[in-house]
Formats: sequence, structure tokens, C-alpha cells
Amino acid sequence: MIVGIESGGTKTLCAIADSHDAATPIRVERIPTTTPAETFGRINSVIAETLGTELPEAVGIASFGPLNTNPDDEHYGWITGTTKPGWAFTDVLRHLGTGDAPHAFVTDVTGSAMGEATWGAARGVERVAYATVGTGIGVGFVAGDHVLGGNGFPEMGNILVRRHPRDDFEGSCPFHGDCVEGLASGPSVIARWGASGSELSAPDREAMTEIVGYYVAQLISIVTYTLGAERVVLGGGVMHTPGLLDSVRWQFDRIIGGPGAGHGLTQDSTEYIVAPALGERSGVLGALALAQRTLAAQSPLPAA
Amino acid sequence: MIVGIESGGTKTLCAIADSHDAATPIRVERIPTTTPAETFGRINSVIAETLGTELPEAVGIASFGPLNTNPDDEHYGWITGTTKPGWAFTDVLRHLGTGDAPHAFVTDVTGSAMGEATWGAARGVERVAYATVGTGIGVGFVAGDHVLGGNGFPEMGNILVRRHPRDDFEGSCPFHGDCVEGLASGPSVIARWGASGSELSAPDREAMTEIVGYYVAQLISIVTYTLGAERVVLGGGVMHTPGLLDSVRWQFDRIIGGPGAGHGLTQDSTEYIVAPALGERSGVLGALALAQRTLAAQSPLPAA
Repeated sequence: MIVGIESGGTKTLCAIADSHDAATPIRVERIPTTTPAETFGRINSVIAETLGTELPEAVGIASFGPLNTNPDDEHYGWITGTTKPGWAFTDVLRHLGTGDAPHAFVTDVTGSAMGEATWGAARGVERVAYATVGTGIGVGFVAGDHVLGGNGFPEMGNILVRRHPRDDFEGSCPFHGDCVEGLASGPSVIARWGASGSELSAPDREAMTEIVGYYVAQLISIVTYTLGAERVVLGGGVMHTPGLLDSVRWQFDRIIGGPGAGHGLTQDSTEYIVAPALGERSGVLGALALAQRTLAAQSPLPAA
Repeated sequence: MIVGIESGGTKTLCAIADSHDAATPIRVERIPTTTPAETFGRINSVIAETLGTELPEAVGIASFGPLNTNPDDEHYGWITGTTKPGWAFTDVLRHLGTGDAPHAFVTDVTGSAMGEATWGAARGVERVAYATVGTGIGVGFVAGDHVLGGNGFPEMGNILVRRHPRDDFEGSCPFHGDCVEGLASGPSVIARWGASGSELSAPDREAMTEIVGYYVAQLISIVTYTLGAERVVLGGGVMHTPGLLDSVRWQFDRIIGGPGAGHGLTQDSTEYIVAPALGERSGVLGALALAQRTLAAQSPLPAA
């Protein structure tokens, strides 16, 4: 049996599955994220209830961050300088009672990218980005078994984007003001229009989808030019705004200039930029997929 | 003996070295880049003169692009849709008379990143970007033995950057107008100020270093946030402009907000953003370094 954990800022998901059938876990528990001791205490109880005295064969953890994911560092496995009360400098791996079980430790969006690449909207695609546009903005990226990441990166929410000519909002990021997170995150939408995207009516919704769509389209163009993504899965609460995904697509097409305009991208943007297929389970299923791959990497291969 | 080739838009360098002493090649030839047949004919002559009837043990090729670097593709080893006359859809590997010698085939800036990481300004650093700001703008990235790249990416010259408030130039990129290449490349400098950066006097030089520096600093911030670079080597003809490197550094610091501003970068920008140490040989020495690594990967390891 393997365990996948997605630790989010408000809720934590813990899934347990047979390693040969990880796509359909036998148990998925939803736990509120309170203090580290209480949250991991409940995770450990779920695991113990299900597995008894057995340790899991492998564990995948996809966590909010920033994280230390450098195995050579003494603070490997920690959530580092988060602004979330009680969580700064939390040793996640030590809190988990899974002993020496082999594990993978990645950011939440990396987990979601792995989930969508393995069983979701990017199944069969080699180079997959998952971008979340919600309370924060982040990007995870996987290429086959390879995961992009290390100490504090990718941290693409901080990227400066070109301002929309009709947007004079100063930005909501405490560090950078009008970086992409300061301009397109959920809090920035509420600061500008007084409600979330889904709650807006015309003409505010049209303004919101055009302006936020312009910034998200720029972020995706950067993912494309830098990482050579072959599909971008676009999740997060802000993306539930009706019309926003279409706005991102047409503005992405305009920014990159269409096929042949000095880049290798030839796909239709309706196939290139897609909604998640796994809903709120992208991350926890990705954590299970990572546990499964970690286990496979540790096992001797069967004879061909 | 191993061979390294850097194929540029105007000149090609071909270096031959002992595989145990690749940093100090026994021969480096500079060949004008004319037609594919003539250019590779001269490269093949240089190799044959030096090695006689022996084939090289390994070959590294760092070429201008766009390139097909996907080994699974039928057009692997080709320069694809370049605007350089006579070079579109050139099968580089077939033109080279090195038979079945193991080889590496990467973009010119990837070669430069590998050269500077192995023997130059980023020696001993794990995650190294090389950005060129010249006739075009491009970024190469290496992390240890791992090279970022594939079909037509990275293609970071196309990225949209935030406009400097004092710059109303429409941009010189034929595809995207005012992408970073359209705003900060050598041709864009000449279009705005009538001369290259090195030839300008005050006040045009001050304007040029501030405006171009702002765009290059944004590009480097994107490399930082996306790829987690630990050092960025900044080359290309435009970077010879006095004062430009300093301008890039202080604007980079302002954009990222200093250590702790929501990202993992803690280095002083004077150590983080540096000039190349290998001059015009970054690329060809990188090609030799790649040949050396390719050879090492093919050989049985000596007993420990």
C-alpha cells in the first residue's frame, strides 16, 4: 500500500491505495489544515487505521510552500518561510509517522501536474505544466519522471508581466505589488471589483476576464517559451470564472503570434490550454503517482 | 581525440582536443559561415587534417537555430525554419563527416552555458544559465549533466516584457514587435539610437543602458523564478556597452525585491549575474565539454 498526501493552506487530503491500482485509492480523507501537530496527527491516524502496524511501501507528499526540496540540505523536507501562522519552518517529513518508507516531496502544483499528467487532462503528454490561479499563483512542471524544482523554485507567481492598458490597479502582492500574482490572484480580483470572478456581472466580468486573462496568458507564454510545455492544465478558484479560460486562450494566441511565429508551438490553444480533469483531486492523486514511481524506482525491475 | 563545433550565424569555430584535456584544445579553427556545403566541407577538412583517417571519439555541436534536438524525430539534427538564406532545413549531422561517432547536438547558447559552467565564470555552480544579448536574444540552461531543451525551446527571446515608461519604440521583432528580442537586441538599439551601445555618448548611452537594462533584468528574473538558476552568465555584443551590466544588476535587484521577497535567491547580484570568462570561446569549449561528457557516458566506468 502507498500513501499520497496533498497539504494545502486550508485543507489536507490523504489518500491510501494499492500500489498496483493507485488511480483508484481505497480511502481518501479530507482534513482541515490547522496546526502542524494536529494536522499530521490526524494524517498519521488515518494511515495507522488503514494499514495497522505496516508501514506504507512509499509516500508522496505535495505541499504548499515554500519548500526545501533539496535532499542534500539539512532542512530538506521542511516548509520554510511561509506567512501561514504556525507553519514557518515545519519539518514535514519528521511530523509524518512513515519512518524510513521511500518518499517523494514536491510542491502542491508539482503534485497536480503529476496527477493530471498520469491520470487527467494531460495523460499521455510528456511535458506538462499545471498552473493554479487562486489565492496565489504557482506553476508546477513535470517531464515524464522528471520533476522541475528545487529550493524555492519554480516561483513563477513573482514574475513581472506587461500591464493591461485598462488596468491601473497597484497590485496586491506584499513583496512585488503588481507581479502576476499581485494582478491576477483571487485577492487582486476582489480588491479591484469587490467580489470573486464567479460572482461578477457584466460589465465587470468582461473587464475581469479580459484583464486577468491577459496576465494569465502571458504567464503561460513564458511557460511555453522557457520549458517547452506540450500541455498546460490551468486550475485554481479564479479559473471558475465563466469566460476566463476562453479569454486566456485567445490572448495567448495573440501574444505568441500563432504557429510559425518564431517558436515551435503548433497546437491549437483549445487543446494546449485545458481545465483539470481530476477536480480537487489533481494534487493528491499526483502524490500517489509520485509514491508509485518512487516505489518502482526502488524495486528491481522484473525480467523483460 | 574529440571535436567541438560552434556554428554561428556569421562564423563557425571548430576545436579538436585530447579527451583527457578538453579545456586546452590542440587546434581551434575559425571558419566563416557561408553555405552549409562549404562551411561543413571546411570543418570536415580541419578534422581530417588533424585526425587523419581516425574518427573522433565524440563530437559536440552547438548551433544557431531553431534546431530539432529531439532524437526520436526523423528530422533530428536539423537546423529547421531559420531565416538565414540557404540554411533552412539543413541536416547538420549528415553534413558532418564524423560517421557514427557519439555526439551531442544543442543550441549555441546551451553550448555557451556548458562551456562557462565547466571552465568559465560559472565553474562549480550546478544550475547555470547563459543569456546572449546580441543580434538576437537567447537563453541556454544546464544543470550538471542535464541540458534544458528540445524542439524549438527554450525560445526566451520571444517573451513579452513590461515596457519601460520612457520607451515608445515599436520593437524590431518581425513576429512579435516588442518582445524582449524586439526591444533589447542589437538591431533594436540601432533602430532607436542610430548606433550600437558601445558607440553611443551621453545622454543616449544613459537612456540605452537604463531601458535595455530594464528588459534584460526582467528576462533574468524570469530565468531565476522559472529555472532556479544559481548563476546567470550574460554575453553577446550588446553587453559590451559600458554601464549596461551594472544597470541590469540594479534593476534586477529592484524587480525581485531583494533576499527574502518571496523567492529563494539570496545571492548578491554582482555574483549572480556575471560576464562570460571564456570570451568568444564559451560555445566551442562547451561543445568540447559536451563531447567529453558524451564519451564518458558511453564508456564503462573505471573500477572505484
